[in-house]
Formats: sequence, C-alpha cells, structure tokens
Amino acid sequence: MQKVTAFAPATVANVSCGFDILGFAVDDLGDKVTVSLSGNPGIRVTKIEGDKGKLPYEADKNTCGVAIHAMLEQMDFEGGLEIELYKGLPLGSGMGSSAASAVAALVAVNRLLGNPFEKKELLPFAIEAERIACGAGHADNVSPALLGGFVLIRDYHPLDVIPLNVPRGLYCTLVHPHLVLNTSDSRSVLRRNVSLKDATTQSGNIAGLVAGLFQEDMSLISRSLNDVIAEPSRSVLIPGYDEVKEAIKAAGALGCGISGSGPTIFILSPNEEIAWEVSRLSQQVFEKIGLPIDLYVSAINTRGAYIIEEEQ
Amino acid sequence: MQKVTAFAPATVANVSCGFDILGFAVDDLGDKVTVSLSGNPGIRVTKIEGDKGKLPYEADKNTCGVAIHAMLEQMDFEGGLEIELYKGLPLGSGMGSSAASAVAALVAVNRLLGNPFEKKELLPFAIEAERIACGAGHADNVSPALLGGFVLIRDYHPLDVIPLNVPRGLYCTLVHPHLVLNTSDSRSVLRRNVSLKDATTQSGNIAGLVAGLFQEDMSLISRSLNDVIAEPSRSVLIPGYDEVKEAIKAAGALGCGISGSGPTIFILSPNEEIAWEVSRLSQQVFEKIGLPIDLYVSAINTRGAYIIEEEQ
Repeated sequence: MQKVTAFAPATVANVSCGFDILGFAVDDLGDKVTVSLSGNPGIRVTKIEGDKGKLPYEADKNTCGVAIHAMLEQMDFEGGLEIELYKGLPLGSGMGSSAASAVAALVAVNRLLGNPFEKKELLPFAIEAERIACGAGHADNVSPALLGGFVLIRDYHPLDVIPLNVPRGLYCTLVHPHLVLNTSDSRSVLRRNVSLKDATTQSGNIAGLVAGLFQEDMSLISRSLNDVIAEPSRSVLIPGYDEVKEAIKAAGALGCGISGSGPTIFILSPNEEIAWEVSRLSQQVFEKIGLPIDLYVSAINTRGAYIIEEEQ
Repeated sequence: MQKVTAFAPATVANVSCGFDILGFAVDDLGDKVTVSLSGNPGIRVTKIEGDKGKLPYEADKNTCGVAIHAMLEQMDFEGGLEIELYKGLPLGSGMGSSAASAVAALVAVNRLLGNPFEKKELLPFAIEAERIACGAGHADNVSPALLGGFVLIRDYHPLDVIPLNVPRGLYCTLVHPHLVLNTSDSRSVLRRNVSLKDATTQSGNIAGLVAGLFQEDMSLISRSLNDVIAEPSRSVLIPGYDEVKEAIKAAGALGCGISGSGPTIFILSPNEEIAWEVSRLSQQVFEKIGLPIDLYVSAINTRGAYIIEEEQ
C-alpha cells in the first residue's frame, strides 16, 4: 500500500444530560485524510483544504500530525508520511472538527502500515491530539468518531469507553449558527459546584437516556434529554436556543442540546421526516434573529471512521 | 373473595452510583400482609407479628393502613377491611421494611376488591405510605418491591418509573449489622452541594451500570458500582464497611454499597457461589469487630410482590 484515504464523521459530544460522558456520530458530514508513504523520514502535512487557511501545517501543531506521532511512538517505523487533510467540518463549531481529522488520520495510517492496531486501540492517540487542539484530552468526540454510534466515556483512569445501542429510526439535525464561541469561555460559564438535587436529577436522566437507547424507547429518550447542569448556563451564549427548543418539541422532536461546547445545536428526532421539519423550523428561528446558519440532517453513523480509498 | 395474603420482598435502594434513583428487589425475604373483608366499615389493623411490638396499630399511622387509605380514596368502597401484618423484615435496617408492608397490603387489597388497579397504578399509594413512614415520599423501595428487578426512578414530577434488565446469575448478599441508624441522621451527613467533577463521575457510573445491566456485562457492572457522592460520608457511620468492601472485591464480588440509608450493606455477585463466599467473609469482618449481624443470600427478585393465598 502506498496511499490510503480515510473518512471520520462529525460528532456530538455533551449529549444533553450526558454532559462530558456521552457522544454520538452522524453520517456523511466529516473530514477526509489521505496519507502516503514517503522516502523522506518524518511526518509532513502537505495539503490542507476547506479550512480557510486557519490550520497549521507544522506536524506537531496539527491534530493529524500529533495523533500520528503518538501512534508511531508505539511502533518501529522509521519511514516518512505525507498527510493531506480535506476538512468537511467547520472549525470551532462544536461538531468535533479536530477529532474527525485526528481519527481519519489514524485510521488511514493504521491501514497504510498493515493494521498494527485494533480500531479501539487507536483511541489514546486521538485523545493526545485532542489535548493539543482543545487543551484537554477529551474522549467524547474521538470515541464516536472512531467507533460510530453512541459511546459512553465512563472513566478516563483507565479509559473505559462503552458503545451503546442505536435505536432504529433515530435521526439528528445539526444547526450551526455562524458565531464563534471559544471553548474555554464556554467552559468558564460552568459552575464548579452543583446542588445534590441537580446532580441526582442529571443521574436520573442519563440513566433514563441509556435505558431508552437500549430499549429503543423514543418516549423515554425524549423525557430523559434534559440537562440541568451545563445547558442552563451555556444556552444563554447562543441566541435563538430557547426558541429552537420550544419549536422542535412541538414538532415531535425528542429533544435538543448544545453540541460539544457549541455553538452548534443538535436535535434528535424519532424519524427522518421530523428531522427535516425541525431543520425548517430552526431556519425560521434564525432568519428572524438575522443570524446565518448551516443545517445538516443525518442518520446516526453506526460504523465510525472508515477507509474510502487505497492505492497500491 | 373474603381474605387475601400477599408477599412483598425486601429491597435495596440507593444502589451505589444510583443514589436516590435506583432500587432492586431480593427473593424470599420480605413481609406478608393478610387482608379480610369485614362487616364494620373502616380500616383496622388487627394483628402485627415480628415487629417486637414497635409498629402502631392505628391505621392512619401504620404504613399498611396509610397505603390502603390512599388507594380507597380513589374508589367507591364503603366496606370494612381487617389487616394482619407479618413482618419478615427488621425495622430500620435499610432493607425497605416499610415499603414491603405497604406494597404487600396494596397488592392484597387490590386482589380482594377484584383488581380495580393495574399493578403499576398502585405505586402512588405506596409512596403516600412512605411519606408517613420515612418523612419523604420516596419511590426507590416501593417500586422494586412492587414490580421486582432493578427499577430506575427517573423523575417524580410526574412519576417516571423504568424497569431495567436483570442479568442472569446476578446474586445479592445482605449484611445487616445490629446497630440503629436514624434515616434523618443518615441524610444529614450528605453534602448539599457536590463538585461538578463528582457529579460527572457519578453520571458516568450510573450510565455504565445501566448499560451493564442491559448488556449483562458483569465486568462493566463491577467497574460502575462506585458511588462518589453518598458513600464517602455515609460509610463512616458503619463500622466494618471498608473492610467488607476490600474483602468482597478480592473474592470476586462485583461491588457493594449501603442499602437505603443503612446500616445494611448489600453486595452484588456474579453467581451464587461468590454470594455465599462474601457472606462468610463479611461474617469474619464483623466477628473481629464484635458486632452481631444477620446475613441473607438471595437471587434478584424479578416478579415483585405477589399473592400467596386466597380464601373464598
């Protein structure tokens, strides 16, 4: 193999009551990374498209380069790699842009080098890349980007990543308002302490959400999609959030939340028809506000990242 | 029908990381209630056995009487009922003693009167009885006592009670040290606020526990049985707790916790053999301390309360 291209999907982290512990992957929307063997040792980023010139070419600053470097440290590989990154995801949107790039790069390199690692074993390398990109080694985007579906991050010490069931029919709408939220700002609005009552409510809801996913009980999923910890402080940073939330519930969506640390809003629906309807309703809300948005309607991705092209 | 006897099982509430939201029922151990039609209108408690004279005969103070009164308020019933209560559960042990009495009474009366309610519809009446017995209308003992298995109490407004899966082979050991813990004391040691970090850890663990129950993944259940909110403050009230916890983990048990507000310790095991072994180890710990205990080893009850005798 001389050249491999892999795709990794957009992901939603901080899934409502699953704040900091639950993420899921969406279909189609994502990043592509092409990796080629090179005669010159070392990792080089040779092309980046779709980033409007914002991402660094230095391999030790680029999320793809950092992930691959972490991987190669666990192997005997003395050769060279050239990386081309094709961004399908907007940066800083809360849709797991850095995670998708890192995961696509890892999946491509793993195949290029003859699959020295099981898919799940690539996770720690992707987490290293998140540490560079986000300032913290979160696993709630990279895990679903790699594995697909809903993934619970139960613990980090040691890492305990648990794929959950994906109910048939579940659809996602992503509403990306064109405004910039800094991840660290978004984190600073969170309270450091929560009441025992709120902690218990959140526990009840995440337990209900996990049960609803396994039982494929759309009503239970809907009743459980309620975040009393992060959403109250974070949603005020997103104009239109409350209006969207009200409109989509009336239209039969299961619920919504802030994707990652925002500003993207994710909406879960019990079928594709409602997912398109709430897309239309969200458009109306933001037209009134006068804020441009991008809209994506997608099934839940259940296979995670995958190879799309190989050249001998 | 003139006379019906029902059984309701002991229950474990506050199941580790499921503090305040999760309970389960055990087999065999429980209370029996016999209810008979009477020519004299009103509810009368005519016999109580096994309570060492501690429970009140006044129907408006007795958990059975209160539960039945709440039920009859929703019906047209002008007759009289006589109640006999046979306590199999020790009072104030944290094994859902008041819940078992209330639930057994409700199931018996419901049958006696021709099943005017579905089983699940009896829950609000049992919660009323808990309000009298415990000072708060908790549902985490009465729900598993009535329905069996593991039951999640996602919310109270409105009541949202979700039966979960019970993995095959799961066994419970109950260790009841002979010491008296007052429920309100046990509650007062809880902090009113918890760190965001602890709240997130608890959420991850309850999500893992629910996933483990559905996936019948004993290892995941074990990794998730970790309560960072209530156990650290409450376990200091129970001498021997830490020693039991250490001993049972080494013997292959999945984990342990404080049953309800204590002092009973529950231990979950992946099979009956280990459940007996940890029973023996717990005995050793409390012998060293010099504190008498009662021990019970039981499968998880999956059918809840049931009728054991009827007389025409």
